[in-house]
Amino acid sequence: MEKKIAIQGIKGSFHYQVALDYFDEFQSIDECMSFDSLVESILTNKSSHAVMAIENSIVGSIIPNYALIDKNNLKIIGEYYHSVHHNFMSIKGQKIEDILEVHSHPMAILQCKEFFKNYPHIKLVEDKDTAETAKRIHDNQLKGIGAIASKTAAELYDLEILAAEIQTINNNQTRFVIISKNQNKSTNEVNKASLKFELEHKRGSLATVLNVMSDCKLNLTKIQSLPKIETPFQYAFFVDITFDDYKDYEKGKQILEIMTTHFKVLGEYENKNQ
Amino acid sequence: MEKKIAIQGIKGSFHYQVALDYFDEFQSIDECMSFDSLVESILTNKSSHAVMAIENSIVGSIIPNYALIDKNNLKIIGEYYHSVHHNFMSIKGQKIEDILEVHSHPMAILQCKEFFKNYPHIKLVEDKDTAETAKRIHDNQLKGIGAIASKTAAELYDLEILAAEIQTINNNQTRFVIISKNQNKSTNEVNKASLKFELEHKRGSLATVLNVMSDCKLNLTKIQSLPKIETPFQYAFFVDITFDDYKDYEKGKQILEIMTTHFKVLGEYENKNQ
Repeated sequence: MEKKIAIQGIKGSFHYQVALDYFDEFQSIDECMSFDSLVESILTNKSSHAVMAIENSIVGSIIPNYALIDKNNLKIIGEYYHSVHHNFMSIKGQKIEDILEVHSHPMAILQCKEFFKNYPHIKLVEDKDTAETAKRIHDNQLKGIGAIASKTAAELYDLEILAAEIQTINNNQTRFVIISKNQNKSTNEVNKASLKFELEHKRGSLATVLNVMSDCKLNLTKIQSLPKIETPFQYAFFVDITFDDYKDYEKGKQILEIMTTHFKVLGEYENKNQ
Repeated sequence: MEKKIAIQGIKGSFHYQVALDYFDEFQSIDECMSFDSLVESILTNKSSHAVMAIENSIVGSIIPNYALIDKNNLKIIGEYYHSVHHNFMSIKGQKIEDILEVHSHPMAILQCKEFFKNYPHIKLVEDKDTAETAKRIHDNQLKGIGAIASKTAAELYDLEILAAEIQTINNNQTRFVIISKNQNKSTNEVNKASLKFELEHKRGSLATVLNVMSDCKLNLTKIQSLPKIETPFQYAFFVDITFDDYKDYEKGKQILEIMTTHFKVLGEYENKNQ
């Protein structure tokens, strides 16, 4: 199957790095400037797969992305944990003292806040994308303006790294999912699933469901409740589980389909690392 | 006790509206331009209380704000659900066709995305604060630029509403918490608590904890797991519970303190509405 990959951001972005790391090879990259257009790229068959950030240790789950997958009936077919490394860069020949503004994605700014506390003369400006800012600084040879981006971005856009590894938390992993229109056919390597279901707000209803999961040897790796605004007292849950035997999962799935409402498998895939 | 309230944003922001609605009266408002400075305002005793957005139906929990409360040992002493109403506004005498850019907070833009799909000529620009943008448009009498903000902001900053109620989801509630340095002394009206605890990643460990909660007549209204990056295979949970009898809660709390690690009460308060 031809692999055409949609990423959020441009070449040099973290999504691009994950595409390079996850896929052995691919035919094309579609640079999307929003998660909406990323999904559009799959729905219109412009791309066969997309790389999408789904959670990190600072903001937790990126719920709007869960909603995009759910609403458009896309399937999670893989996941990838990427350690975030941020670098402070500018056009060549400048020092940190020369930089008056740093432009970057709000998340990157959040992740490097501590570093910039030491440089109160620098104004932090929120921007669309880490790599896109790096490219713009290069294209316009902007003086006095820095970017927070990856080493790959510094290389691609010929910028000088003024300070490397400026992220506050050193073990900050972002989890990305690989999404596609259809689920993988083979269940050979599947040992993880992302599920969504709803429960009535009755005392103990979630405990009962988790008991069943435990009985079926399913390990919970993530749980998140979301109140359903249209239907008060109805709760939706996003749950990730891992398992050793696909048969255990199949059994648990059958029971959950009966016990819960609006049960849906967002994806079955291989838990590679973490 | 004198009530000095810190809010995120300026007068006319949603935080301001919640301060007006929640408190019968207050002596002063400290307009903070970030959640960090909001917390700073309490820590330095500049404010006695702060209003802080903690979750909404689009992004779910605002985890960085949970972290701020936790890290600084602040206490949740109340909560307030505020229905979000967004309005599209500009200086007087302009039509929607005249507006080329709309500036607002990323969350407000996200919540009104559907509306602006009908106006592809309008560029959506992310900005710091909904009300602050409205004020700037007024102060500089900016032509061709619109804001997404509350009716209060339109009144305060003398702007004309071009389209009212432009939010996509009509029943979109944001949950705000009221935070302070110390927990309320009286437990008379307390019927809700926000807890944080950690569990080892062992199959069934969460199910066991939820069983205890259910046995103690505690109703789960929210649950959220967060992997602890420093300690792999250790999971932190943020949980909200409601109860009819404070004694049931006290009993459950004692058991959870033994069953979990790093057990912490983020706040005990009255669940007023929703």
